[in-house]
Amino acid sequence: MDEVRIRKLLGAFQEGELPLEDLVAALKQLPFKDLGYANLDLHREMRRGCAEVVYCEGKRPGQVGEIFGHLLEHHDNVLGTRARPEDHAEVLKRAPDAVWHAEARIIRVERRPLEAPPTEILVAAAGTSDLPVAEEAAVTAEFMGNRVGRLYDVGVAGIHRLLAHSERIASASVIIAVAGMEGALPSVIAGLARCPVVAVPTSVGYGASFGGVAALLAMLNSCASGVGVVNIDNGFGAATLASLINRR
Amino acid sequence: MDEVRIRKLLGAFQEGELPLEDLVAALKQLPFKDLGYANLDLHREMRRGCAEVVYCEGKRPGQVGEIFGHLLEHHDNVLGTRARPEDHAEVLKRAPDAVWHAEARIIRVERRPLEAPPTEILVAAAGTSDLPVAEEAAVTAEFMGNRVGRLYDVGVAGIHRLLAHSERIASASVIIAVAGMEGALPSVIAGLARCPVVAVPTSVGYGASFGGVAALLAMLNSCASGVGVVNIDNGFGAATLASLINRR
Amino acid sequence: MDEVRIRKLLGAFQEGELPLEDLVAALKQLPFKDLGYANLDLHREMRRGCAEVVYCEGKRPGQVGEIFGHLLEHHDNVLGTRARPEDHAEVLKRAPDAVWHAEARIIRVERRPLEAPPTEILVAAAGTSDLPVAEEAAVTAEFMGNRVGRLYDVGVAGIHRLLAHSERIASASVIIAVAGMEGALPSVIAGLARCPVVAVPTSVGYGASFGGVAALLAMLNSCASGVGVVNIDNGFGAATLASLINRR
Amino acid sequence: MDEVRIRKLLGAFQEGELPLEDLVAALKQLPFKDLGYANLDLHREMRRGCAEVVYCEGKRPGQVGEIFGHLLEHHDNVLGTRARPEDHAEVLKRAPDAVWHAEARIIRVERRPLEAPPTEILVAAAGTSDLPVAEEAAVTAEFMGNRVGRLYDVGVAGIHRLLAHSERIASASVIIAVAGMEGALPSVIAGLARCPVVAVPTSVGYGASFGGVAALLAMLNSCASGVGVVNIDNGFGAATLASLINRR
Amino acid sequence: MDEVRIRKLLGAFQEGELPLEDLVAALKQLPFKDLGYANLDLHREMRRGCAEVVYCEGKRPGQVGEIFGHLLEHHDNVLGTRARPEDHAEVLKRAPDAVWHAEARIIRVERRPLEAPPTEILVAAAGTSDLPVAEEAAVTAEFMGNRVGRLYDVGVAGIHRLLAHSERIASASVIIAVAGMEGALPSVIAGLARCPVVAVPTSVGYGASFGGVAALLAMLNSCASGVGVVNIDNGFGAATLASLINRR
Amino acid sequence: MDEVRIRKLLGAFQEGELPLEDLVAALKQLPFKDLGYANLDLHREMRRGCAEVVYCEGKRPGQVGEIFGHLLEHHDNVLGTRARPEDHAEVLKRAPDAVWHAEARIIRVERRPLEAPPTEILVAAAGTSDLPVAEEAAVTAEFMGNRVGRLYDVGVAGIHRLLAHSERIASASVIIAVAGMEGALPSVIAGLARCPVVAVPTSVGYGASFGGVAALLAMLNSCASGVGVVNIDNGFGAATLASLINRR
Amino acid sequence: MDEVRIRKLLGAFQEGELPLEDLVAALKQLPFKDLGYANLDLHREMRRGCAEVVYCEGKRPGQVGEIFGHLLEHHDNVLGTRARPEDHAEVLKRAPDAVWHAEARIIRVERRPLEAPPTEILVAAAGTSDLPVAEEAAVTAEFMGNRVGRLYDVGVAGIHRLLAHSERIASASVIIAVAGMEGALPSVIAGLARCPVVAVPTSVGYGASFGGVAALLAMLNSCASGVGVVNIDNGFGAATLASLINRR
Amino acid sequence: MDEVRIRKLLGAFQEGELPLEDLVAALKQLPFKDLGYANLDLHREMRRGCAEVVYCEGKRPGQVGEIFGHLLEHHDNVLGTRARPEDHAEVLKRAPDAVWHAEARIIRVERRPLEAPPTEILVAAAGTSDLPVAEEAAVTAEFMGNRVGRLYDVGVAGIHRLLAHSERIASASVIIAVAGMEGALPSVIAGLARCPVVAVPTSVGYGASFGGVAALLAMLNSCASGVGVVNIDNGFGAATLASLINRR
Repeated sequence: MDEVRIRKLLGAFQEGELPLEDLVAALKQLPFKDLGYANLDLHREMRRGCAEVVYCEGKRPGQVGEIFGHLLEHHDNVLGTRARPEDHAEVLKRAPDAVWHAEARIIRVERRPLEAPPTEILVAAAGTSDLPVAEEAAVTAEFMGNRVGRLYDVGVAGIHRLLAHSERIASASVIIAVAGMEGALPSVIAGLARCPVVAVPTSVGYGASFGGVAALLAMLNSCASGVGVVNIDNGFGAATLASLINRR
Repeated sequence: MDEVRIRKLLGAFQEGELPLEDLVAALKQLPFKDLGYANLDLHREMRRGCAEVVYCEGKRPGQVGEIFGHLLEHHDNVLGTRARPEDHAEVLKRAPDAVWHAEARIIRVERRPLEAPPTEILVAAAGTSDLPVAEEAAVTAEFMGNRVGRLYDVGVAGIHRLLAHSERIASASVIIAVAGMEGALPSVIAGLARCPVVAVPTSVGYGASFGGVAALLAMLNSCASGVGVVNIDNGFGAATLASLINRR
Repeated sequence: MDEVRIRKLLGAFQEGELPLEDLVAALKQLPFKDLGYANLDLHREMRRGCAEVVYCEGKRPGQVGEIFGHLLEHHDNVLGTRARPEDHAEVLKRAPDAVWHAEARIIRVERRPLEAPPTEILVAAAGTSDLPVAEEAAVTAEFMGNRVGRLYDVGVAGIHRLLAHSERIASASVIIAVAGMEGALPSVIAGLARCPVVAVPTSVGYGASFGGVAALLAMLNSCASGVGVVNIDNGFGAATLASLINRR
Repeated sequence: MDEVRIRKLLGAFQEGELPLEDLVAALKQLPFKDLGYANLDLHREMRRGCAEVVYCEGKRPGQVGEIFGHLLEHHDNVLGTRARPEDHAEVLKRAPDAVWHAEARIIRVERRPLEAPPTEILVAAAGTSDLPVAEEAAVTAEFMGNRVGRLYDVGVAGIHRLLAHSERIASASVIIAVAGMEGALPSVIAGLARCPVVAVPTSVGYGASFGGVAALLAMLNSCASGVGVVNIDNGFGAATLASLINRR
Repeated sequence: MDEVRIRKLLGAFQEGELPLEDLVAALKQLPFKDLGYANLDLHREMRRGCAEVVYCEGKRPGQVGEIFGHLLEHHDNVLGTRARPEDHAEVLKRAPDAVWHAEARIIRVERRPLEAPPTEILVAAAGTSDLPVAEEAAVTAEFMGNRVGRLYDVGVAGIHRLLAHSERIASASVIIAVAGMEGALPSVIAGLARCPVVAVPTSVGYGASFGGVAALLAMLNSCASGVGVVNIDNGFGAATLASLINRR
Repeated sequence: MDEVRIRKLLGAFQEGELPLEDLVAALKQLPFKDLGYANLDLHREMRRGCAEVVYCEGKRPGQVGEIFGHLLEHHDNVLGTRARPEDHAEVLKRAPDAVWHAEARIIRVERRPLEAPPTEILVAAAGTSDLPVAEEAAVTAEFMGNRVGRLYDVGVAGIHRLLAHSERIASASVIIAVAGMEGALPSVIAGLARCPVVAVPTSVGYGASFGGVAALLAMLNSCASGVGVVNIDNGFGAATLASLINRR
Repeated sequence: MDEVRIRKLLGAFQEGELPLEDLVAALKQLPFKDLGYANLDLHREMRRGCAEVVYCEGKRPGQVGEIFGHLLEHHDNVLGTRARPEDHAEVLKRAPDAVWHAEARIIRVERRPLEAPPTEILVAAAGTSDLPVAEEAAVTAEFMGNRVGRLYDVGVAGIHRLLAHSERIASASVIIAVAGMEGALPSVIAGLARCPVVAVPTSVGYGASFGGVAALLAMLNSCASGVGVVNIDNGFGAATLASLINRR
Repeated sequence: MDEVRIRKLLGAFQEGELPLEDLVAALKQLPFKDLGYANLDLHREMRRGCAEVVYCEGKRPGQVGEIFGHLLEHHDNVLGTRARPEDHAEVLKRAPDAVWHAEARIIRVERRPLEAPPTEILVAAAGTSDLPVAEEAAVTAEFMGNRVGRLYDVGVAGIHRLLAHSERIASASVIIAVAGMEGALPSVIAGLARCPVVAVPTSVGYGASFGGVAALLAMLNSCASGVGVVNIDNGFGAATLASLINRR
């Protein structure tokens, strides 16, 4: 512990065991190495409401299994995103309580669930193809200690399906709006809501959707205010931001 | 007249005044020069429901005035788009009945108005900044012999303003939907309408709107079907397409 | 039925079975949930001239089969686009009358064909590589209750092949022009036609065609008027728009 | 008031003054026109914490003055963004208490300031050229009823200037991070903060900054989580989002 | 003259006036400095068929005048492209025989015209807005010693106007096809011609023409073969290439 | 033959077998269908110096075999580009004299070689990875009746390797310059040559080469004049253009 | 001074004037505020070899003058880049020894020139339009204490002009290669040099040069190794990097 | 040897065995073919500090093996980049001392290691996914005769991990900073360092990272000076540039 070490140095100095010059030199080394940063990392943990998250894409199933095993020695809760069933199989060998969320492509080990505040994060998705990203956001937000509501298949071309839920929209604490193609959902929702909207463009579409760029641009240009945008397909990032807002 | 000329040639041939070789040679020259194309051009005129349109941008006021003067010798109706008040002043010198549409930036001379079918073209615009393009479409469509309805300031962030007009939307013959920024209006309208929707992205916006590209991409990726897109700010082109549909 | 429900509520109120406060509360819930929207959906069905369309890409053959089975319980006509032979095989298990259109990659079940108006939708395609998209448009348009003419291999580099059909072009009700590479076909056709032209860029090409972007831009910048553009490779969307125009 | 109107209709119906058919017809018209939407608009006003905002760019000074005059008949607080001194001069004629914020390019009339919660929105900016956008955000956030802290000239190339304020960063309620060029500030700040970060790319830079695109992409790809991005130069939008978060 | 110098060195060496080591050292310096490159420059001059060309854009009128004055001391023929009337006025002070081509924006001093081969370069342009680029090409090609034919206003939306000239197209030696907007002209022309086609995209258009990019992409993706593309608005470059082909 | 048919019609008319009205109607149908276009196609054949070319990419080996079989019934020479060994195997079944060019990925059947003019097309390539495109150009040019020289591995980073061949460059009739990455080869070559240069960008490279876009842009912006550019990887198109130039 | 302050704190602690707790608290505040960072800034100054640089673009002449005045109170050498003559006039009022470099658009006050190492930075530029950027680099590098050689108008289309200087290229310590259009110069130079090459794309060009993007991409894809690229038109940045290399 | 050949020619000339004309002709051929360029290539070898490098991507394992075998006949040290284990297996057959660097994907044969200068190249990488590129740079730099330090997992979102190494950063001779996603690492490092920084963007990321473009743009727009950028994922190029700087 940094403070402990400082006190020890000062004690040695006071005792005459440490010359002034050495003390000054030691103090100059302190800041970047020891002081405060561990706190920062503790803050990170507290802030996110979870111990650790593993991004599984690009890793082999064996690697994912090992990383989970290693992390579970020190943490109660570990999440794996962008995972495949093979990854889950490997994790199960070390953590038989690892849950598999197929749609969200998430592996979840949750041994000490966080207590959730009473308010709700509402996850809205435009089409069925947007569900993997929406579920990545929803499962992650739950893992981070939030109540999560789901509102799926409410694309703007059938506006009444969305309006049928205007009360839930008006009462949410924060809304994650997930859409590909023309990406108009966040604009319409932000016009109905009283809370911040986190917009997630998805790569759903073809041709001039350019892998989600069309939806991304639409969201950045939303004529409604109160909208913050995250990267294409970034359900995890949306959940982290929404959780920070909801758990304040 | 082409047919007249063919008959004349054949008559001369029959009379022995024109040798076979000369007739064959003459006939081989005919097609591209004289045969049918005048008809095509007549068709163009009929099809568009107007005599001539002058694109004023990049021309000097004096030039615009001269072109109007020249065209009005042969045509009853002439329209000038993307015009400035200076252009109108020059046209007035030659055509005192030239009307100025400030918002639409259009000069209109209409001496023999076309009869309009009973059905309506509805022009919807998202924001007040989209009005110049919407008015260019509306005035052009009227000039081409259509009844035109206007539905302005119905952006998707205030969805109820749009829904308040759902009956007009449902009864239109064809709808021109004009929007900049995230360009979501055509998607929502096409979900409420029973008719074709002509989508017009505008260059309204800043930053990542990229001069209308965001709106253009949104419209091309509309999750609603029945939407045809024209170029950015192309109110005139939208009106031409809508008129072709409405006047069938 | 919504109206039925309103009348029932009012009856109960009149009978004194329903207190005023409860009636008011019930009425406030009505609009988004029950009133009118079912009609809208009926309109959608009527408008499109078909019951349901399944976008098969990204679904497993088993899923496609199940969805068809489910839909055919309630609908006479079901179309599957972007399908593979494996999808068709699965659908055949549940609907032995399901037809496979190989070039169009479409599965069609049509038990109660729609009556077609006498006018014709003409589908024109520039090259043989554009045929899958052109056929997707043609088969979809037929399914939606339209007579469809086909004009294939009429690319602008051999302009006479196109001109040889100038009468069919001039007499069409609406033309779907399909082209990749430089995407010039819609411009030339719109110059010859008297009807609206729906332009479909395809991803045919390589290098600087950028997956259809070159053709898309060309069509948006068409110097001919009366052209509406849909997304790259979107034969289905073109057919929907053309059918809305033709069946008016 | 909608409810009033419903009760009146029901009263008339109960009194026998309104036949059943007419009541049903009237009720079917209600939803989109009268029911609930006024509330929605009240919500908008409450949500944003301000009466009205005028986007002055593209309007003439006279227009800006008129709009302010009109709005101040019904609202206590009006804000004008992207304004010029000429606009302010026109507004002063009608509202002598209109304040001019030169750096922020904002006109502010604030006759009934909103009470601010004790927590702070911290606005951080990378360079001096980013100040107009940062001040647009800061002044707007104050106007919307928030305490605002400012942390300017803390670009990542001089990381110690930023770190010198790590305690303020750690204690903020929400941080607006404004940066052009490589747009790295939000990533570094989000790594130090416990609260949501609203990232605002600016068009500051030249060459391959592409008018703010480089910064925008950097922010969307932030390796730190908890970051929501708004459009390039959109200080106003950032303030609205931050205010929604801070005033929850 | 290089060869002269080599002979002189060898003579001195043979005479014993130049030691072997010095000769070797001198020879090692020769290649890049003196040998052959002057010839290359003579080739350049011969190849281009003109002495010198001045690109006036970005230069002040005074500078243009001075450069012309300087060049005319050594050359009979000098061309100035992308010039303004002010530039011409300055050149006239030094060269009263300097001709001004307004449409082409070219200043031409031609005191010893090159003899032209009997074959013709045909310059075709789609619309009237493309004329400045077409004329830059045509005047430059004439200056470089070529007979030049002009075929203007033959855009593909009025295909018969182009076909009316199919014989001239078929008999040209090389064709320069100039077009903005959808840039389809070179494809259609290459389908009718027997000679190489030099395609010049222009920045004519708006919105999704992106300053000529749409036309450029169309030309690069031409479905007709025998087409070589130059930069947007590069009439001069097209003329140089065409002249190299025609004067072979 | 068209002329034959016209004469026959006129004969029948003269004989009184064909009424005037029918003759007029028949003549009006002629132009696009029968007159001259066959000639145009003969011209195409003559112009290209080959009968037919098959683009094999996207076709199955069986299809390629069939197409070759069909074409060889009417043509002596057939070329297949973008082919695979499997395609060649299928062609061999029908044409045992079909030659396989592995590097060029070309199948060649050449039973009546065209006579080549004495001048040479020089194909220069920057790196070994550019060879497939360079060989596609070289083999195609030979097939079209040209003498072809090859100059490979002469990238600009080792400028002396290129300069060692300056005489061949100076004496070529037309040069095809093939390069990926920074695409500088055509600029340097055009500075050394007296003939037209056809520039072919290749998709060789990674990262910011964007599949050949970097090289394409470099070639379009060449500071040397006399350069015409074709699409990325379009060796065939370059050969066609070069052959048109060389065989004039 | 930080160290002074630490010693003072420790002295007070040793004297019993400062309790242990207060000392610990004070020390925890130190690092980011006071310790070491001033050194870092001194390092910055030493590293760059100059006191301060003012980026004048976007500042008013009066502001530039004031900033110079302020900086010259503390520094001997101040440089202003992207300046205009008006800026220089204002600076002259406060610093009569301020030198104006017209081509480089630089204001230079240099009262204590840095001693330059014997090695040379060579600045090479492709065309005359690239000179402003090249001179910005050259003047800046001189100001930072370097000997600078200039090699202008050595574009790759006239390769012999470049090769004539191959010895200077081979003996340079570091080369700054400046080019617009196709941006090939750094590749050719890096093939001839033994030292690092700093590549600077310029915005010189038009059409598909896209404001320097073509040159930038070419430089990033250089087939020669040993090339580091800076932003478009960033002569100052190139000089800073080259100076760091040369002064090591 | 060139000089040898010149002396031989001159000897023959002096002996009267070679007539003057033949000598002159021979000398004119010399420059590009024989004189000096071999030296240049020797320079290249010396400059890079290695004999030869094989880019394995796109080559078959057998080919890689053969190339290594061939090169090792003439060189002591050969490096293969972008290799796979299969390539290494093939090389082992011919060079049993070939070392495999799995993370760097490099095959190294080093029989006569270069002596390294005492200064250090520091390779810093932001995340674990950036390691393949970082290791390609590190292993290449070692092979070229440099001491290399590694500083991994120091992304800017955890700034303290980077600052903990500020002394190593301050004492490096040149730093290679490798980062994907928002690419901010080089900016922060350049603010802490006194030496040149070579920035390497990686293709690590998804969505709006566009395969490394986001990181590339960030690095080109670095607000810190002294940064030179190489192509995306170009670890080898970064090492070559850094080695040129370090070994001066």
